[in-house]
Amino acid sequence: MSDGADTGWLAVAGLGPGDEGLITPEVTATLAEATDVIGYVPYVARVAAREGLVRHPSDNRVELDRAALALNLAAQGRRVVVVSSGDPGVFAMAAAVFEALEAGAPEWLNVDIRVLPGITAMLAASARAGAPLGHDFCAINLSDNLKPWALIEKRLRLAAEADFAMAFYNPRSKSRPEGFARALAVLQEACGDDRPVLFARAVSTPDEELRIVPLDKAEPAMADMRTMVIVGSSRTRTIARAGGPVLYTPRSVPETAA
Amino acid sequence: MSDGADTGWLAVAGLGPGDEGLITPEVTATLAEATDVIGYVPYVARVAAREGLVRHPSDNRVELDRAALALNLAAQGRRVVVVSSGDPGVFAMAAAVFEALEAGAPEWLNVDIRVLPGITAMLAASARAGAPLGHDFCAINLSDNLKPWALIEKRLRLAAEADFAMAFYNPRSKSRPEGFARALAVLQEACGDDRPVLFARAVSTPDEELRIVPLDKAEPAMADMRTMVIVGSSRTRTIARAGGPVLYTPRSVPETAA
Repeated sequence: MSDGADTGWLAVAGLGPGDEGLITPEVTATLAEATDVIGYVPYVARVAAREGLVRHPSDNRVELDRAALALNLAAQGRRVVVVSSGDPGVFAMAAAVFEALEAGAPEWLNVDIRVLPGITAMLAASARAGAPLGHDFCAINLSDNLKPWALIEKRLRLAAEADFAMAFYNPRSKSRPEGFARALAVLQEACGDDRPVLFARAVSTPDEELRIVPLDKAEPAMADMRTMVIVGSSRTRTIARAGGPVLYTPRSVPETAA
Repeated sequence: MSDGADTGWLAVAGLGPGDEGLITPEVTATLAEATDVIGYVPYVARVAAREGLVRHPSDNRVELDRAALALNLAAQGRRVVVVSSGDPGVFAMAAAVFEALEAGAPEWLNVDIRVLPGITAMLAASARAGAPLGHDFCAINLSDNLKPWALIEKRLRLAAEADFAMAFYNPRSKSRPEGFARALAVLQEACGDDRPVLFARAVSTPDEELRIVPLDKAEPAMADMRTMVIVGSSRTRTIARAGGPVLYTPRSVPETAA
């Protein structure tokens, strides 16, 4: 087609947690072919400007508008990359793009859409601390912007009963500072005082800070919007070392623990 | 020290699911500095031979021996990379290294150990299918080599009650073919017939195969040792397209769903 619509595509790409060394070659190569990059301001800022690349930074919480812009441009024949930090499939833009696709213009169904995985925050944080997610675990978004608080609390209690290690995204924001305090209270009741908690802030960036505390010493102020929180299972252990403690969950569970 | 022991290190690195384009630059750079690479035969085979690099392939299920070899070599001043597929912190070698460290020689506590994250199988599979892990989810190793079957079944039931999407590693092996059939039976009882199930085999390799079926059509033979299985939550949806269906879980849950 003369308008180039058959050559457009949309890639939803993960930039990883911050370090350039954690961006996959697949994502780097795809960005090099793009005509347009779309995303939240700080993520678009991670993509270098160059001739032939139009950058479309947007504010937080406009995910569906951003997805519609991306689908429209790709349907017009542009080569579009929507960028997320971490992995685009984990509490990020991939689901938003498919929500927009399902609700949107029929011609969008012909757009070539690819999701390009990235290093998600919980796995970067886990790696820095040791291997706290080395056995069965769950990942929960603690933001109640898009789901009822009662569901979050139900999931916390069931995850504790299942004895999963738990990784929490978006533990705390200015607009709902009380949510994380409530989550910690639920966890203290369900898991006891000694369960180790990792606060991993801005992993792989110059601002990186790690802190491991027992659950009864965990305080809401230890997390901000750049912090990943991981709560161990009942089997998670700490090894003391001169170079700093290691937090890990063994691969095995004895027969008596069922 | 003249024996070089102060310059040795141990990196536990993730090679991703198979495609070279999914290996992080951090892992590639670290492998280029290594004197020794250690791991399960097919993973060591993914690291090109070169002068100055000793390759130590080993069989499956000797994880602790492999970890001890790595710690010993690093303590002697070698630059050692233990390789896993996917992410080393998810049902892979990082936890085994820390188990060996905790139980092992006191001098190992001085070894410089780093875990280098990788693209784990569930996120590669999720990306290929759409975004089935786009909302809260859990990851469960279905192998009962290292934990009691009763615990697996308990976790399946609680995960269904929590309405997590579920990612299953090691669904099926020759030595325990009945386990996955039992898991599917538990899930059918807990989640109903219509829940979508993704079978994603050998993602990002030439052998890649994807299949999406409703839970009542899921059969044990659809998975082998190279298959990742993802079961959607009650909110997971399929979008029909000419290019193949998209499987995704929306980011939001309505207030009435709690």
